[in-house]
This record gives sequence, C-alpha cells and structure tokens, in this order.
Amino acid sequence: MKKVYLMTPGPTPVPDDVRLAEAKPIIHHRTTEFAEIYVRISEDLKVVFKTHNVVLTFLSSGTGAMEGAVSNMLSPGDRALCIMGGKFGERWEEICKAYGIQVVSLNVEWGDYVKPEEVKRMLDQYPDIKAVFTTLCETSTGTLFPIKEYGDIVRNKPNTLLVVDAISGLGACDMRTDEWGVDICVSGSQKGLMLPPGLAFVSVSDKAWRFTETSRCPKYYFNFTKQRIALEKKSPTAYTPGVSLIVALDKSLARIKEEGIDNVLERHARLANATREAVKTLGLSLLSKKPANAVTAINVPSNIDGGALKRTLDKKYGVSVAGGQADLKGKIIRIAHLGYMGEFDIITAISALELSLKDLGYKVELGKGVAKAMGILK
Amino acid sequence: MKKVYLMTPGPTPVPDDVRLAEAKPIIHHRTTEFAEIYVRISEDLKVVFKTHNVVLTFLSSGTGAMEGAVSNMLSPGDRALCIMGGKFGERWEEICKAYGIQVVSLNVEWGDYVKPEEVKRMLDQYPDIKAVFTTLCETSTGTLFPIKEYGDIVRNKPNTLLVVDAISGLGACDMRTDEWGVDICVSGSQKGLMLPPGLAFVSVSDKAWRFTETSRCPKYYFNFTKQRIALEKKSPTAYTPGVSLIVALDKSLARIKEEGIDNVLERHARLANATREAVKTLGLSLLSKKPANAVTAINVPSNIDGGALKRTLDKKYGVSVAGGQADLKGKIIRIAHLGYMGEFDIITAISALELSLKDLGYKVELGKGVAKAMGILK
Repeated sequence: MKKVYLMTPGPTPVPDDVRLAEAKPIIHHRTTEFAEIYVRISEDLKVVFKTHNVVLTFLSSGTGAMEGAVSNMLSPGDRALCIMGGKFGERWEEICKAYGIQVVSLNVEWGDYVKPEEVKRMLDQYPDIKAVFTTLCETSTGTLFPIKEYGDIVRNKPNTLLVVDAISGLGACDMRTDEWGVDICVSGSQKGLMLPPGLAFVSVSDKAWRFTETSRCPKYYFNFTKQRIALEKKSPTAYTPGVSLIVALDKSLARIKEEGIDNVLERHARLANATREAVKTLGLSLLSKKPANAVTAINVPSNIDGGALKRTLDKKYGVSVAGGQADLKGKIIRIAHLGYMGEFDIITAISALELSLKDLGYKVELGKGVAKAMGILK
Repeated sequence: MKKVYLMTPGPTPVPDDVRLAEAKPIIHHRTTEFAEIYVRISEDLKVVFKTHNVVLTFLSSGTGAMEGAVSNMLSPGDRALCIMGGKFGERWEEICKAYGIQVVSLNVEWGDYVKPEEVKRMLDQYPDIKAVFTTLCETSTGTLFPIKEYGDIVRNKPNTLLVVDAISGLGACDMRTDEWGVDICVSGSQKGLMLPPGLAFVSVSDKAWRFTETSRCPKYYFNFTKQRIALEKKSPTAYTPGVSLIVALDKSLARIKEEGIDNVLERHARLANATREAVKTLGLSLLSKKPANAVTAINVPSNIDGGALKRTLDKKYGVSVAGGQADLKGKIIRIAHLGYMGEFDIITAISALELSLKDLGYKVELGKGVAKAMGILK
C-alpha cells in the first residue's frame, strides 16, 4: 500500500464532504431548489473575488472563460497588450490571435514578472490598446504579477480594460478585484476553490459590460450577456449547467466562508513561506523572482535529473508534484500549497523532497528542511 | 418523507456506482493512470456512436460541441442548411448566425419532422450548402428525425457535411454514425450516458477533417484539431479535462458495454413503447408525429392546466417531468425514459400521471394505464 498525495497546482485535492456533495443524486437545473443554490454560489463567489461585480459561472475549464473575455470584449483588428512570462500569459496571446486581435506583448524570462512601468510605456506608445491581459499567479513559474500596480495604470483609461487570469491564484493570492480596478477576473474550480475541474468563473465590471455592446467577435457558448441575463432571471444559466459541480461548489464555498477569505489567504501565505524557507535551507533555490503563495517552483540542482526527481517523489513516495513546462522541462519541480492544504501537507512534501534528493545522491541532512518548515508553521 | 424520481430528458439519473466513481479522490490529468482511462473512454464511445471515426471529449455542455461543429467546419459567409422543428434545431441556426454563416432553414410545426425530400430540394436549390445541421431526437418535442434518409442524400456530395445533434438521442435512439454517413455527431454526458452534465462528445469523419483545413471561423477552447492531436499523443486533452466526470464516464461506459449497446437501445424502445401505449390508453394524445425513444411528449387535455399537472406530479408525488418550451409551455408534459431507466420507473411515472390527472379532475380509471404498460413490459 502507498498513500498518494496530490500536490500539483491543479487539479488540487477535494475535501471529502465536497466530493460527497458532488456525488449526490442529480437534481434538475430548472427548479427552485437548484436556482437557490445557483444564486447563493454566485453571491458567495463575490466574497472570494472581493468584488461587487456580477460573477458568471460557465461549465468548462478556466481557458473557456479566458476565451470569453477576449470574444465578448473585443473585435477583430482591435489592439491588446498581453503581459507574458509563462505558459498562461502566452495563452492570452494565443487566444487573441485566434480572434484576429492585434497583439502587442511584454515578455520576460520565465520566473520573472513584467514591471508596471513597462506596461505604462506600452500604453503610452499604443494609446489604442483596448485590453491588457495578464495573470495573477503564473502557474508555470510560480510567480505573482503586480496586479494592483497594473490596475493603477489602467484604471483611469476609459477605453482600456484590465483582464486578469486568476485561475490558479484565486483563493491563494490576494485578489482585490474592485479595489485594484480589475475589469474582468477569470478563475476556475480545480485550484483554490477545492473542486474538480469543470467550472470557470468570470467577474465583469460595468466598464467591461460597455465593451460587450460593441464587440463583434463571434461567441455563443461563452456569451457573457446571455449568461448574465439568465442569472438575473434566476433561470439560471443559458445552457445546461454543471449541476453536480455547482452543488459541490456550494459546499466548498461554505468552507471558505466559515474560515473567512482573509484567513484562507493567510494560511496560504504561511504554507508558502514554510515551503520556500525549507527549500532554501536544503540549499536549493527558487525559480521565481516574486514567488506566489499558490505554488513554489524549485530549481533542480544541476547534478540531479529533474525528471528522475519528479518520478522518485511520485513513484517511490506517492507525492505527486508538477515538473517544468516548455523550456523548463526537467529543470524545475513545482510543489503546490493550494486549496485544501494544511501544515502537515507541507511537512509531507518537504520530507518526501529530502528523501528523494538523498536517493538521487544530493547531499542532504534528513529533517533539516522539515525542521525549518515546522519552525515557521508552529 | 417523499422519494423523488427524476424523469426529465436531461439531466437524467446517475447510477450509484457512477456517482461514487465521480466522488473518488482526484487524480492529475498528466499521468499514465489518467491517460489510460482517457484512451479507453475515447474507444468505448465509438461503440455507442457506432463509428470508427475519432470521438473527442470536451469539458462543457453539449452546446459547446455544437458550436465547435460550426466554428471548426465553416467560414463566415458559407451557406448552411438548418433543419428545425424544435428548440434544439433552432439552436443550430442561432450558432450559425453568431458565426456569420448564411442560413437557409427548413422548419416544421413543433412535433413534426422535416421530410427527406425537402432536404433534397433545398440541396438542389442551393448547391453551395456546405453543411446540413440536424437533430436525432428533438428533445423539446420528443421527435425522431430521419437521419438515415438525410444521410442518403448528403453522403455523395463531397462539399457538404451532415452534422447531427444526438445530445439527447444517443444511447436511446439508434445512431449509426458510419452506416448513415454522419460526418459529425455531437452528444453530451447528462442523457443516455447516465452522467451529470459536463462532458460533450463529437465524432468527426475524414471528410469533416478536410473541412477543418479551410475553416476561417475563430476557435480556441473548442478547437477540434488541437484536441485530436492531444488525444493522439495521449496527452490527453488540450486543456484541463473534466477528471471526475471522465472517471465516472469510464464506469457508465462499462455498464453500457456489459449490457451491449443494442440491448440498451432495445430497452429504451420497450420503455418508450410502454409509455406511449399507456398514455394513449388514458385517452391522452402524443405531440409527436414520430415519437423518439428518449422522451415522450404528451398533449395536456384542454380542460387541464399543464403547469398544474407538472406541479402536481412534482410536488405531490415527487415525479419530476419536463413541461413544454416556448409556445408549448403549459400545453405538454414530457416524460423521459432515458439512460438509467427500468420497467418500474415507467410504472411509477404512469401511476403518478394517473393520480395527478385524477387530482385535477380528469376522468381516469386508476391503474388502467399502468396495466397497459405492464402488458408491454412483461
């Protein structure tokens, strides 16, 4: 027997009561019973997003709502700025190009983030930029992007929207949608919200709703306006919703409300800090210049095979972590502390990391990283 | 205590073992374990679709895959024929129009179906029609459309595709994708496949793949080519898949394989026939001129309030059926015998229908419809 521990940055572990809620007998979506749940989750999500804007729920992975943020706001030929620095920043560029948007981009080495003054420079250079697309937590590098500072730049431009992919960030990294002037915030179910994949969320500001009136990109399934009208009518969605996932979401949001969103964020900060400090104590370095509290990307020492490290963690110790993507394949491992995670998940991860490193010939004093983490988690 | 019985044409009841499979701890999608499941369900679905074509799985409701069938095959300005006669036929027209497709349509009164000779006439009149969009079972009216006959007309036209929405039909009504020359067959999880909503399926013929090469509609999340390449690489999907739903699908497909697809279809035929005959014995008439085996649409007698009948069934007897949509609201009720349904579900439905009709003042000899159904189900 080997117990398995899912420590990847999505999907993340789902609490037992949430899984059992998902397994409840199906109810029909055109009923008062379901409408009550749907209206409640739509309100509770606002607490997590820290917004008064409407939050729409789609049955898809987060990428679907990212596509909707492009197709509902822009028209072919419009100019957009894509802030990159990882796989998910690049996704914004891919989606924009698929819709005939003229993309200008700001790129940095993976692990770094784009400085706000670079964004300001681009907006000055191209005053016709209609949307700035960026990422709260770039999952591929474990990097936090300075959304507040981007918001300070975009906020007063009436013809430019700030659109944030907070798919892996929400619920782990502070996301103050309204306070920071974020017009569209996208998220997904299988990260900080402690659910299986299948629900995508998007908050839409009044300023953004005005953009929908002139958008000429085709859209149907991810039509924001239709989905808002359905929600207003408590209908509750334009097309068949993800009934089992939404019933489960109601349960996971109840957990978050009970803990309190700021306590949830503080827990993630503590777990992330313990992970980072433990890793550094072992003589390893972090990839990210500004580590996010959702996931820690660790540079694999040059004398260790990154693929072997990931496999040892997984096959020998049952601890499933993520490797690197694209050019970082084999060069980093990523340990998530995202969603349904407590102190002893970090102890488990660091302990397995120490054992795996030792197995692969890396010089490690067993328990040193664990002790460091314990000191922070106490 | 009141036991509840879900007899709506989607979502349909989910067997206990399938629900518990859905509730299993989440596994990561970039693992051998998940890839094996994904490859298996992609093969098993071919048996249900009766096809050798690739079957793609998307994380969305069926409507998303319908949109993909338009956006992956056509280009703005192309001409398409939409075969209507109900809410879901009309959806094809809505999607085509959203993408700038020139639509010609064939409409009939709800409850009727479009004759094959009408389709032939339209194709003769507009030889540039690139796709014929139709519906296997029109859920809003419980009507079966003659897909085989449409296939005989479209099959030999190299520049025209036949695209079928089999969302509510698949697994209840015979769907011979290859034999009938169906280029694209769309389905969804929450109907005959006995799952919660959340997965959409689409089979794509070689002829249809050729259309993707010239299509200029924008697409990203529902990009068929990207999804096929991922499946070929056992990657397994372009974006995060619906892990919990796919694990559950593996279980429901095992059930279908064990029963055998033709036995599944025969069971649906028997349950549907019993429902129809019982209803007629009670002096009621059917809406549809060609009733499908997925759902029976029953005309509510003119002296009975259709809304009250649905409410009585639901609130007093716990039997949840569907009402009419659009112009048929209040005029019909629809009893589904779709998916995880056996003989005694029909007995329950007819029994509750008799009791509810009696409550509302309709003259009914209690047990007469039930006896008729029993005679057929024996």
